[in-house]
Amino acid sequence: MDATELIEHVPFASHLGVEVHEAVDGRAAATLPLRAEHSSNPGGLVAHGGVTFALADTVGGAAVVSECERVAPTIDVRIDYLAPATDDLYAEATVARSGESVAVVDVDIAEDDDRSARVATARGAYKTGGDADGSPWTEGVDVEELF
Amino acid sequence: MDATELIEHVPFASHLGVEVHEAVDGRAAATLPLRAEHSSNPGGLVAHGGVTFALADTVGGAAVVSECERVAPTIDVRIDYLAPATDDLYAEATVARSGESVAVVDVDIAEDDDRSARVATARGAYKTGGDADGSPWTEGVDVEELF
Amino acid sequence: MDATELIEHVPFASHLGVEVHEAVDGRAAATLPLRAEHSSNPGGLVAHGGVTFALADTVGGAAVVSECERVAPTIDVRIDYLAPATDDLYAEATVARSGESVAVVDVDIAEDDDRSARVATARGAYKTGGDADGSPWTEGVDVEELF
Amino acid sequence: MDATELIEHVPFASHLGVEVHEAVDGRAAATLPLRAEHSSNPGGLVAHGGVTFALADTVGGAAVVSECERVAPTIDVRIDYLAPATDDLYAEATVARSGESVAVVDVDIAEDDDRSARVATARGAYKTGGDADGSPWTEGVDVEELF
Repeated sequence: MDATELIEHVPFASHLGVEVHEAVDGRAAATLPLRAEHSSNPGGLVAHGGVTFALADTVGGAAVVSECERVAPTIDVRIDYLAPATDDLYAEATVARSGESVAVVDVDIAEDDDRSARVATARGAYKTGGDADGSPWTEGVDVEELF
Repeated sequence: MDATELIEHVPFASHLGVEVHEAVDGRAAATLPLRAEHSSNPGGLVAHGGVTFALADTVGGAAVVSECERVAPTIDVRIDYLAPATDDLYAEATVARSGESVAVVDVDIAEDDDRSARVATARGAYKTGGDADGSPWTEGVDVEELF
Repeated sequence: MDATELIEHVPFASHLGVEVHEAVDGRAAATLPLRAEHSSNPGGLVAHGGVTFALADTVGGAAVVSECERVAPTIDVRIDYLAPATDDLYAEATVARSGESVAVVDVDIAEDDDRSARVATARGAYKTGGDADGSPWTEGVDVEELF
Repeated sequence: MDATELIEHVPFASHLGVEVHEAVDGRAAATLPLRAEHSSNPGGLVAHGGVTFALADTVGGAAVVSECERVAPTIDVRIDYLAPATDDLYAEATVARSGESVAVVDVDIAEDDDRSARVATARGAYKTGGDADGSPWTEGVDVEELF
């Protein structure tokens, strides 16, 4: 199973409609359809910060997993909101550092129909060391089979 | 309308089940029920980073709004994950700096039945200056009536 | 006076040896010579995190000032260390968002003789709104003359 | 050698005048005298962001080292500036999470004569796993002897 399929099985990512289109060699791309329930405004449609963040964290994790080939829990993320997002979202992630215990990833988020104009940008650190077996992230999952 | 009610009308917060119990004088508290669709693991229940973040951003925003009494878009947030969260979440936010153009807020997140053990901690900057009228955050909303 | 000269007069930047070579239209570049007193290791030469950060904050501020043409205090910065830096540093900053109250800037830091390999990366928010007159940042300085 | 002494030997911390007064069981406290060369303003005395950051990173690292008893390189730090600092600085750090590969630490910075009013606050992740031997942080240092 590759990182793309792995993410499809994450309940919250699936619930939001995130689709990871590619996740290979430390790079990943994903989309999220902006729905009424994702809005921050009862009178209109503008992505709630948590929606944009969930896409960023998901595609960032996919990029890391595509490179380190193991479950990689998020350590921390900073997200900066650059402009309101009022349409479907597109995100790209690139691993900036891939270490034995920590990976760092850059994520840019835009509206899908204007991918060159960022609406947000994020940077996160993910744990690539230590033993994930038996943790809440892998309980009930056959990790061996995943990679 | 006070900040507590204001947040109840935010579609994504409502969709996730966030309840802001209190938002007054720069402090706010909220809960989020952990549901199967909020999980990061197809084989078990552990809060996805985006769920914890959405709660943090929502209660952080409520704390800011309770003090500055205006719509306050998120500028940026850093979240650190300290432990896996496998039960309903509780979050508290406290404004650390309240300025004319920017407010800073500290947020601690725990499981609701053990509020002293943080599962995550966040810090965000929110915009308290400039004109929010006519922005995507207030389109279709009678801002005058809100405050 | 342009942003380049402005930074030369900042005591701490000058003390560290920071030179801003360019600061125009939201972009800036600067260097810092790595000296023995900048080290994090008594037995060798590796840039202390505070040295790399000071360069990042300085060049980031210069980029913002080059665009907004006013004193712009730092709101917050995140810096990620990607590799140890053991030689003179080079940094480039690009404004990612330039708003009426807040600007966001991206900064990449490398060793000067290998500018394509980042040793650190930072992102900061700077205050571009409100009145800086009479603040500790401008006390004793003729701000009118600066811009 | 305890963490307090260890930091005294860090060239840049020593150069700035940082004194770590205590570093034990995941908590540390330090001071930094504000000198003319630390200023951000040629016409007055206000701490440059890089000075405040260097103190935060140093005391944060001391807190981590006091708990994990090994060299712990900084992974990333976010610092928020809450008020201008125009006098000697005092900082306290507390480890929020101490893991086998990553520790997270909270740092509050104030003026030394008014320790309850924060001028800045920082949060950082430090690497506590992997092998630091032979890295630029320990070159020329007898790590065995340090701990």
